[in-house]
Amino acid sequence: MPKVKVVERILSANDQIAAENRARLDAQGVVTINIMASPGAGKTSLILRTAEALRGRLRVGAIEGDVASSVDADKVAAAGVPVVQINTGGQCHLDAPMVTRALDALPLDDVDVLLVENVGNLICPSGFQLGQRWDVVVSSVPEGDDKPLKYPGIFTEVDAVVINKIDLQPYLDYDEAAFRQTVRALNADVPIFSLSCKTGEGVADWADWLVAAVDK
Amino acid sequence: MPKVKVVERILSANDQIAAENRARLDAQGVVTINIMASPGAGKTSLILRTAEALRGRLRVGAIEGDVASSVDADKVAAAGVPVVQINTGGQCHLDAPMVTRALDALPLDDVDVLLVENVGNLICPSGFQLGQRWDVVVSSVPEGDDKPLKYPGIFTEVDAVVINKIDLQPYLDYDEAAFRQTVRALNADVPIFSLSCKTGEGVADWADWLVAAVDK
Repeated sequence: MPKVKVVERILSANDQIAAENRARLDAQGVVTINIMASPGAGKTSLILRTAEALRGRLRVGAIEGDVASSVDADKVAAAGVPVVQINTGGQCHLDAPMVTRALDALPLDDVDVLLVENVGNLICPSGFQLGQRWDVVVSSVPEGDDKPLKYPGIFTEVDAVVINKIDLQPYLDYDEAAFRQTVRALNADVPIFSLSCKTGEGVADWADWLVAAVDK
Repeated sequence: MPKVKVVERILSANDQIAAENRARLDAQGVVTINIMASPGAGKTSLILRTAEALRGRLRVGAIEGDVASSVDADKVAAAGVPVVQINTGGQCHLDAPMVTRALDALPLDDVDVLLVENVGNLICPSGFQLGQRWDVVVSSVPEGDDKPLKYPGIFTEVDAVVINKIDLQPYLDYDEAAFRQTVRALNADVPIFSLSCKTGEGVADWADWLVAAVDK
């Protein structure tokens, strides 16, 4: 039988730079979390609540990704969190080279957990490695409980799911059990946190999980 | 002076097929509206409310675009509206060839207005012509009033803006005047409709505008 040549996977340019970002972050002891969600699901609010909940336990830094504006970074900076805004200028997701430039501008010696807010989009961001250790998707109650059915890719790949805006549950037809069941069918063991960044309900459980996960 | 060669714009494959779709729809007397929004902004609810409001005035058909599932088309079909579901299988927007195949499956002789629900995404869909006459963006109150700042491209290009879920206004910090002002800075004369697909408030104004616009 002729010997079959095996072509090893060659990293794409983006994957290569993501691997370099990851090595740099690991060397600095920085755990990086890529936060993905629809526009308006509450990614920035989650970063603000998480930074508040981790105060005195872990030092938080942030990268804010948006097509345009610095609205989000302004809010995070006002909360005393070291932050860099990336404007993609039209691109529908962050990529590894953008994150490299943001890392150059962050005081990584003073950061234990780096929260990266990706562009609001439930599809494209999951296809691009940044150098993160974990991926998290935020899905808010007003978006409806059918999002995992319609955007299965992102829910399949993440390391944690956050249900945000549970304070709006009384005013909406949202079936949290149905949402959880659909997520479980895609990603059996993924931790799912229900919380409200507005009221703070449920944020402590999420923050405690983060602290335990970072310590591992 | 040497004569400079002028290369005329050659339509991309997608634009070419979109132009063919448009010619076919025009010949059939079908006005097609491309509805874009974030995931969960209420595109399907708007289609259902619009079909209801136009009953006896214009005959509505629909194309439902999603990465996966037929959840939306099932709802629209249950309301008695001729509908085709397109599953993009991962692609973050509809394209013209997908719409061609959907047109083949629709009873176009029985349709005056074809409502096309694009994939939930505020960035990618605006880059791909489908054969539509108009583009509409739906932005819901829980997403926040800063969406036009963060996703200016789509708000700049559309022919109408719909603010949905105004019934949730009492429970949210949403500044509708700020939203409208940002939209106006991008797209000075665009009509903006505030409505609730849940309660029906404001739907009549939107439907009346549609009827008048189609008659033109």
